[in-house]
Amino acid sequence: MATSKLTKLLRIEHPIIQAPMAGGVTTPLLVAAVSNAGGLGSLGAGYMQPEQLRTAIKETQRLTDRPFAVNLFIPEKSGISLEKAESANRNLQSFRSELEIEPLPVSDDFAAPFEEQLAVLIEEHVPIFSFTFGIPSANWIEELKNRRITLIGTATTVNEAQQLEASDVDIIVGQGSEAGGHRGTFTGEFETALIGTMALIPQLVDHVNLPVIAAGGIMDGRGIAAAFALGAMGVQLGTAFLSCPESGAHSEYKKAILHSTDESTVLTRAFSGKPARGIKNRFILEMNQLEGDLPPYPLQNSLTRDIRQAAAKQNRPEFMSLWAGQASRLSQTKSAGELVTDLAADTARVLNQLHI
Amino acid sequence: MATSKLTKLLRIEHPIIQAPMAGGVTTPLLVAAVSNAGGLGSLGAGYMQPEQLRTAIKETQRLTDRPFAVNLFIPEKSGISLEKAESANRNLQSFRSELEIEPLPVSDDFAAPFEEQLAVLIEEHVPIFSFTFGIPSANWIEELKNRRITLIGTATTVNEAQQLEASDVDIIVGQGSEAGGHRGTFTGEFETALIGTMALIPQLVDHVNLPVIAAGGIMDGRGIAAAFALGAMGVQLGTAFLSCPESGAHSEYKKAILHSTDESTVLTRAFSGKPARGIKNRFILEMNQLEGDLPPYPLQNSLTRDIRQAAAKQNRPEFMSLWAGQASRLSQTKSAGELVTDLAADTARVLNQLHI
Repeated sequence: MATSKLTKLLRIEHPIIQAPMAGGVTTPLLVAAVSNAGGLGSLGAGYMQPEQLRTAIKETQRLTDRPFAVNLFIPEKSGISLEKAESANRNLQSFRSELEIEPLPVSDDFAAPFEEQLAVLIEEHVPIFSFTFGIPSANWIEELKNRRITLIGTATTVNEAQQLEASDVDIIVGQGSEAGGHRGTFTGEFETALIGTMALIPQLVDHVNLPVIAAGGIMDGRGIAAAFALGAMGVQLGTAFLSCPESGAHSEYKKAILHSTDESTVLTRAFSGKPARGIKNRFILEMNQLEGDLPPYPLQNSLTRDIRQAAAKQNRPEFMSLWAGQASRLSQTKSAGELVTDLAADTARVLNQLHI
Repeated sequence: MATSKLTKLLRIEHPIIQAPMAGGVTTPLLVAAVSNAGGLGSLGAGYMQPEQLRTAIKETQRLTDRPFAVNLFIPEKSGISLEKAESANRNLQSFRSELEIEPLPVSDDFAAPFEEQLAVLIEEHVPIFSFTFGIPSANWIEELKNRRITLIGTATTVNEAQQLEASDVDIIVGQGSEAGGHRGTFTGEFETALIGTMALIPQLVDHVNLPVIAAGGIMDGRGIAAAFALGAMGVQLGTAFLSCPESGAHSEYKKAILHSTDESTVLTRAFSGKPARGIKNRFILEMNQLEGDLPPYPLQNSLTRDIRQAAAKQNRPEFMSLWAGQASRLSQTKSAGELVTDLAADTARVLNQLHI
């Protein structure tokens, strides 16, 4: 594909970004394979402790000398009383019983160590920092820009994209409602910010002057060509890389993705307290009955962690968070490098056929 | 744009379909202007009485000798007791008081006169029949096919598209979640069938052998080119035609569309009992508090009719159904014919720029 402002900014060959997926999916192997093939790999490090992040960065750097991104979550507070947290924790007790794990005491230390994570990213000379759930403070943005780190923010609305532009980020990822995993929405209402990629991207492109990367529902050359038609300069694909052999997704998770249909996913707050799209399973169905009582992110996320971990250990996908986008049915099992190469070739093929 | 199986089937120049919008939006003037410009106009006749439909068809035929479609709703029953209907009716009383209109008695005659509507369509030699909310009976399909009427069904999932294909329809409209107005979903769950256009179209194209028309979030040449990239043979645009001078939309409705942003629309059952996307207003916000108590379509639709009509007469958009898609912000005020011509030219421009 032709070079653009985006490929120059990111120093990549193909404007194809492997989406950051937290929770161990985006292994150094996956990230490096994508970057080595000319795309941009992203370490989804939102949940990582600082030293864990340092190890992952070093390992990725050992596997590739090309640029890759590290993605972090802008911290939020649940702002909830210990009493409510304890009640929310009791609502999870039946799952713990079924998985035969001990009840966990509620901790009020929910916040991810964002500033320590950022310090590691700077110390290890990561060239690209992408983030979601908000905007870093002006001080941090200035610090990162001074170190010539390229900043990629996530927007689900024009308003969010304009706020990111005003904060001096370099690139906007426009996350359409099709996307798997957590909604990046940080302003306004979750429901009205649930905008399909087809509608979102042209409106972003019309209202910000930064390169826009389209995310949500893109799985192959058809989706990439469509994103370019809408005005995006690049694409970000998450689900497409989940089933690659290099992905750290649990084998049951990969199986669920590969057996999914277009009707498999729902939006749920069940796992983390923040709306996210994933394959519907028993945990979601049972927790959705408590919808009004679910505590906010990040509290619910820390409360369900032991359950998700035990479910993974016991190979029980009915209690795992199986994040996936609405086109997961188009998943393949190619290696990540081959996938990037084939996506680029497939896009060129689609674009050539479209020419009139 | 190049001819295709779709343009041949429909005998049109541009594979651009003006979406059927019921409730008086798709006037004969609008429908004829679109067809005269080489697109396909559609009379949204779901709510029309048979003789009203006949008059609209005749008027459209007077204004164009090109093909146009008539769209009807596949009938459904609310299956609700008179007692519940009366309770639902009482929930609307405060709106009637504010509009100073008399309370209406509940009628149990909710069904649209579908078979009489179809008979008119056949008698008046309408060449194309499009429909939503289901599939006509096998007898009717046979009758329509025998008369060489082209059938366009609406699908929101692969499963629905496959059912339509098995029923011998000719063309599938794939309605993405961005689309304004009522969801066409007729199988499975509304929530899981809320699939963005970017994700839906490639999956439909992969699983049915019929021409697929993309709908939802498409407003300009960028969206049309993107739809082609996804594998669609044509596009259906509703919101884009709402603000045309030929559209019968209320002036307050047009104003709301032209002042909308990407965050203006929500899905609501408030007006009809069936989920539909429209611009958020006071009626939606107040009725959403009753969400669980809202009676199903078509009962709620007939219960709110007098309120919507009075609101229109009194120029009070806060009580009107302002159906709109998620890209309504891209609306223009061109005449419908000019819009079709410009959309075709804009699409060609986008496609040419994409060629690599």
